[in-house]
Amino acid sequence: MLPEEFRRHAHEVVDWIADYWDDLGAHRVVPDVEPGEIRRALPTTAPEAGEPFSAIMADVDRLILPGMTHWGHPGWFAYFPSNASPPAVLGEMLAAGLGAQCMSWITSPAATELEQVVMEWLRQLLDLPDHFTGSIQDTASTATLVAFLTARERHGPSADRMVAYWSREAHSSVAKAARLAGIPAEHQRVIPVDADLAMCADELARAMTEDRARGLVPGIVVATMGTTSSTACDPLRPIGEAARAAGAWYHVDAAYGGTGAILPELRPLLDGVELADSYVTNPHKWLMTSFDCSAYYVRDVEALLRTCSATPEYLRTDHDASVVNYRDWGIAMGRRFRALKLWFVLRSYGAEGLRALLRGHLEMAQTFAGWVDAEPAWQRLAPVPLGLVCFRHLPPELVGDEAALAEHNRALLARVNASGRVFLTHTTLDGVYAIRLAIGAFRTGPDDVRAAWELLLANA
Amino acid sequence: MLPEEFRRHAHEVVDWIADYWDDLGAHRVVPDVEPGEIRRALPTTAPEAGEPFSAIMADVDRLILPGMTHWGHPGWFAYFPSNASPPAVLGEMLAAGLGAQCMSWITSPAATELEQVVMEWLRQLLDLPDHFTGSIQDTASTATLVAFLTARERHGPSADRMVAYWSREAHSSVAKAARLAGIPAEHQRVIPVDADLAMCADELARAMTEDRARGLVPGIVVATMGTTSSTACDPLRPIGEAARAAGAWYHVDAAYGGTGAILPELRPLLDGVELADSYVTNPHKWLMTSFDCSAYYVRDVEALLRTCSATPEYLRTDHDASVVNYRDWGIAMGRRFRALKLWFVLRSYGAEGLRALLRGHLEMAQTFAGWVDAEPAWQRLAPVPLGLVCFRHLPPELVGDEAALAEHNRALLARVNASGRVFLTHTTLDGVYAIRLAIGAFRTGPDDVRAAWELLLANA
Repeated sequence: MLPEEFRRHAHEVVDWIADYWDDLGAHRVVPDVEPGEIRRALPTTAPEAGEPFSAIMADVDRLILPGMTHWGHPGWFAYFPSNASPPAVLGEMLAAGLGAQCMSWITSPAATELEQVVMEWLRQLLDLPDHFTGSIQDTASTATLVAFLTARERHGPSADRMVAYWSREAHSSVAKAARLAGIPAEHQRVIPVDADLAMCADELARAMTEDRARGLVPGIVVATMGTTSSTACDPLRPIGEAARAAGAWYHVDAAYGGTGAILPELRPLLDGVELADSYVTNPHKWLMTSFDCSAYYVRDVEALLRTCSATPEYLRTDHDASVVNYRDWGIAMGRRFRALKLWFVLRSYGAEGLRALLRGHLEMAQTFAGWVDAEPAWQRLAPVPLGLVCFRHLPPELVGDEAALAEHNRALLARVNASGRVFLTHTTLDGVYAIRLAIGAFRTGPDDVRAAWELLLANA
Repeated sequence: MLPEEFRRHAHEVVDWIADYWDDLGAHRVVPDVEPGEIRRALPTTAPEAGEPFSAIMADVDRLILPGMTHWGHPGWFAYFPSNASPPAVLGEMLAAGLGAQCMSWITSPAATELEQVVMEWLRQLLDLPDHFTGSIQDTASTATLVAFLTARERHGPSADRMVAYWSREAHSSVAKAARLAGIPAEHQRVIPVDADLAMCADELARAMTEDRARGLVPGIVVATMGTTSSTACDPLRPIGEAARAAGAWYHVDAAYGGTGAILPELRPLLDGVELADSYVTNPHKWLMTSFDCSAYYVRDVEALLRTCSATPEYLRTDHDASVVNYRDWGIAMGRRFRALKLWFVLRSYGAEGLRALLRGHLEMAQTFAGWVDAEPAWQRLAPVPLGLVCFRHLPPELVGDEAALAEHNRALLARVNASGRVFLTHTTLDGVYAIRLAIGAFRTGPDDVRAAWELLLANA
């Protein structure tokens, strides 16, 4: 592809994206395709000769677009949001054009130093302690694994007796990280939760005491601010105090909720975070930054480096003593220039622009929760501290029959999603089947939330 | 940012990228900046109010661009190439605009199925066995860690006695993966290499026999096709036979060299790869696909899933039994739509276009090696099976004084790089300081290689 062809085609792609966004609400959120349908429509071998770009884009229109689930759709209420906002996409485009691989300072000095700067900007915006130093990881799952590995490193020879603790409501990536870090099932403790689905700090303390009495070592405690099922917020301070008293590494997973701390009114949910050894929150969820961009903060950079660094001769540079080489801050050696899009987002919206967006989402969530609470045939199933509402339809004739209620709500969710106008997902809370409505896609407005509610009412 | 503003700014970014590429050769490859210089030029806090896009781009021009190392520069001879080719960048742009997070089939059916298709296309192009099934990982470092974790999972209760083997020339990510997988130093074996810096298969077999006699378990063997220091190619067949005979997991790291197998004349270097349990090669290095895009193939998908899968209630879907959910194929749960750019590259160049590019790189490497070989005052330090030449200047008066030769070549490399016209890196081979010249950036032509040689001659 000649330079002038690239220029022409890239302008076409820009118009394609802008048109796609203009038209986003007209798409089904989840496509109506069967497993294997798209695969079967594609050739089974790569072409021998190059093809014109027009042929590729024709297949994008014919095969790919109709098979996409649209995360940017105003009717996106599933999982948590992942916001490819306009400034973030501009940042992604520019990073792609620069094509830098940012493993070391020397391989892209500006990328390294911009990452230092934006991680510090974000630390301040979230009112995190100034003993936290940040880096960008791909996902919270990876960051949490890095926390486990660093904790294991710190425990040295006693790592074999190391026990890990998290609540029943922690994200599945926590148990996965424990497994990948080689912590056997008999050294994994799932701590009970209270009525609000938050970890019981005294149950944690008791479990650690028991383990110490058995000759085991409390190795790592993971608390969650904003669980995936219900956005429950574990009490970070008492958990952190218990973890520190027991000598355990303290990791806080605030993947979704953490960026909410740009709002002073939400910051109390992070009270005690300064006790953490490591902390992760995802600008790629609720801070308008395209996936992937996970902000991982640690108290002790040296511990992270002891765990993850590797400097063979062919990577040594004259500057190593005076620079940050981010390849040593995580698992992957190669790194994209992800700081650029976060910088674009923080500057383009400004702190006040981001606060306004998040406050809008919180207000819509409260409004929706109010509608659920006001209807006797509907039941809210968890507190709503952030942008997620968990609820179910509770027709009087099914009250008391949990199996029938689960089946009824499962069918309701399937009907609502089959409309193509919204995408909601589900969970179980204390064994109860719950529909989740997560508000945080930046195109979602009050009318979209109202339409989702009417769709639920009409299908119930 | 309003939709029409995005459209306008995105067109500006496209022209910025196209102009940048037109002008790439005029930049210094490595910028002339001091550590901390860029950081100090940036504000210490995020802006409170949003800023116009023009202000952001002005800072890109003023601060970021002058601080970038240009991986796409025709004078890029450092490390290995990472090619942000035009079709790959178009794919990145489109993926950014679609904004999908591809953790599960349901969250983007087309992305999942396109990944299945392009991984199969690539498998065929590389003539890999049809019992290999592929997925896209971010980097080979991550893929190698996944291989270690899967091997550990397979060894079950005997994982504690598991020993890992690799050659002295293996990439640093291999030893790092062993460490992260919890294999203690006393269970890590660094196997000697032969005169061509390839692993000695019989030394490997002997080490495994000794370990079994000690009651240890040969757990995983990592062979490299195209080492980072010198592109040495371990003999995959005898190593694989020894690994299988000992019951060890067999992982082949072909991060850089592996994509060379699209050329039938290079495919013999992969002879025996069908014995591997896992195999990684990076289209983001030498196959024109923007970083990150690492192709990880495994023989036994079920073993990978046993290691990496996690399906909490909130991620269950009605289709789980009949689809691939790629979140279960690696460490990170969230995933970008990386298959799109690889599809764009394979279609835009076609197999023959890619073969022509790679053959051009190989030819330039042979030409350069010939120049080194023809000059008595220069010494080639390793075979050149791929696109990398390792060499040093050997002035007669320094022959025999290894310390002085190292210092002389270190200073030569520094002078050459300080010109800003090229970027070469170094390594040590058998303790000898070597300059590395890696050819594979898609803009590099014979004139650029000739200019690099003349620069070396002039500075020697």
